[in-house]
Amino acid sequence: MHGEIETRVRASFAAQGLMAHLGASILSVEENKVVVWLPTRPELTQQHGYIHAGATSAIADTAGGYAALTRFEPDEEVLAVEFKINMHAPAKGEGLEAIGTVIRSGRTLTICHLDVFAIEGAARTLVAVGQQTLIRVKA
Amino acid sequence: MHGEIETRVRASFAAQGLMAHLGASILSVEENKVVVWLPTRPELTQQHGYIHAGATSAIADTAGGYAALTRFEPDEEVLAVEFKINMHAPAKGEGLEAIGTVIRSGRTLTICHLDVFAIEGAARTLVAVGQQTLIRVKA
Amino acid sequence: MHGEIETRVRASFAAQGLMAHLGASILSVEENKVVVWLPTRPELTQQHGYIHAGATSAIADTAGGYAALTRFEPDEEVLAVEFKINMHAPAKGEGLEAIGTVIRSGRTLTICHLDVFAIEGAARTLVAVGQQTLIRVKA
Amino acid sequence: MHGEIETRVRASFAAQGLMAHLGASILSVEENKVVVWLPTRPELTQQHGYIHAGATSAIADTAGGYAALTRFEPDEEVLAVEFKINMHAPAKGEGLEAIGTVIRSGRTLTICHLDVFAIEGAARTLVAVGQQTLIRVKA
Repeated sequence: MHGEIETRVRASFAAQGLMAHLGASILSVEENKVVVWLPTRPELTQQHGYIHAGATSAIADTAGGYAALTRFEPDEEVLAVEFKINMHAPAKGEGLEAIGTVIRSGRTLTICHLDVFAIEGAARTLVAVGQQTLIRVKA
Repeated sequence: MHGEIETRVRASFAAQGLMAHLGASILSVEENKVVVWLPTRPELTQQHGYIHAGATSAIADTAGGYAALTRFEPDEEVLAVEFKINMHAPAKGEGLEAIGTVIRSGRTLTICHLDVFAIEGAARTLVAVGQQTLIRVKA
Repeated sequence: MHGEIETRVRASFAAQGLMAHLGASILSVEENKVVVWLPTRPELTQQHGYIHAGATSAIADTAGGYAALTRFEPDEEVLAVEFKINMHAPAKGEGLEAIGTVIRSGRTLTICHLDVFAIEGAARTLVAVGQQTLIRVKA
Repeated sequence: MHGEIETRVRASFAAQGLMAHLGASILSVEENKVVVWLPTRPELTQQHGYIHAGATSAIADTAGGYAALTRFEPDEEVLAVEFKINMHAPAKGEGLEAIGTVIRSGRTLTICHLDVFAIEGAARTLVAVGQQTLIRVKA
């Protein structure tokens, strides 16, 4: 990982209006892996009071995007091409932790695996899993 | 479509904290098809100033969910199982229009097609397309 | 569509060992749209006697790939990046018709919609729908 | 894992016309994980001589389906609802090994992760990754 990549990821994340608006923050940045934290708030719910799949997807997509970026050169940007996500358990508790992990970083395309865990007291429950394709573009 | 389904969809949408927080509203409800509108705001952006894929996905997922619900009985609820979305153009302009359309409504599972258009003056540009699986559950 | 594109698509299809082995053929080639036909055979079944999702996917992926190719230059090749497919009804009858349709043909990436119909007498039943991402590469 | 589940998986696999026609076999069956092997043959190729994405998908889908089945009761059957697969490297060498692994086995739906490796001499290269949703049905 380039020395400045964590700085770069955190600066880019801070420039995302949506992440601030949702209340998300970056927990950690390492090569191939970025973790995003989203604390539960009434502003994030779907109609049953759980965290909305849209919020779950937003942090998963973001975690994967920045995981991909940890492998790029300073003059390269990342764009998400597509993602697929399964949501198999209610997203509830104190908040959600989204982990983006690079499976394959190619010359043009990168593939990430996405995991989202709900944190509720001592329990850590996998609530969503996904797979994402990203493209490397010159800045 | 059951007589009260539009009322039901709008009441359920109004109970979603996330949709209000993003600033989204329902444009129309008809059998098999629901349209959601999301006006552009700085609170919705990614790092380049376009609307974040997470916001795009959130309204697409919601439009598909309520499209599925238009085919259900009053004692049935809808849950999104998974979705896949391609984002192929910058989401910019006055706002985004997400259209969820039922492709197949089965006894247990429903499949929806998702389209998101960016509205910019007179231009209407398809910026994302997706496919979603939903499950029917007893309330 | 370039004048020779149908010839090119049919020649490329004929070079696919798998399509011949499955017994598939091209029904039609037009700009943005290719249709593949796969007649039912015992060699294509899953454990319940219906056509295997793998065969359904193979012809859907192929139809989408060649639909993308109809938009490319003579020195460009197509590679499938990924696809997602829902199979929502038994694939049975005389055979399957897979239709690949270009939704968006970009400079690098193309997105196709995939439909698979089962043909049984006069009935034509949608049994699978998908979405596919393809990349344009120099030959 | 129920004592007879490996026997059941192997018998069901043997009843699939497509797996025999492609030349695939089961390498191993354990709880939550099934491995399928597909040796390279000219009958499996796409137009560049690599193994066709359709064959890659067919064995990945099958491996995931039987991985799901290892968690089911004797009177329950498995049906694939949908899958998504990324193909990021040429599928070449002596053959392909597809691994289906259960991520989550729920009352109605199961989610599997799919990996496909190309085996070429001593090299083992990940060429495709996927995610699959399956449904449990009473036989």
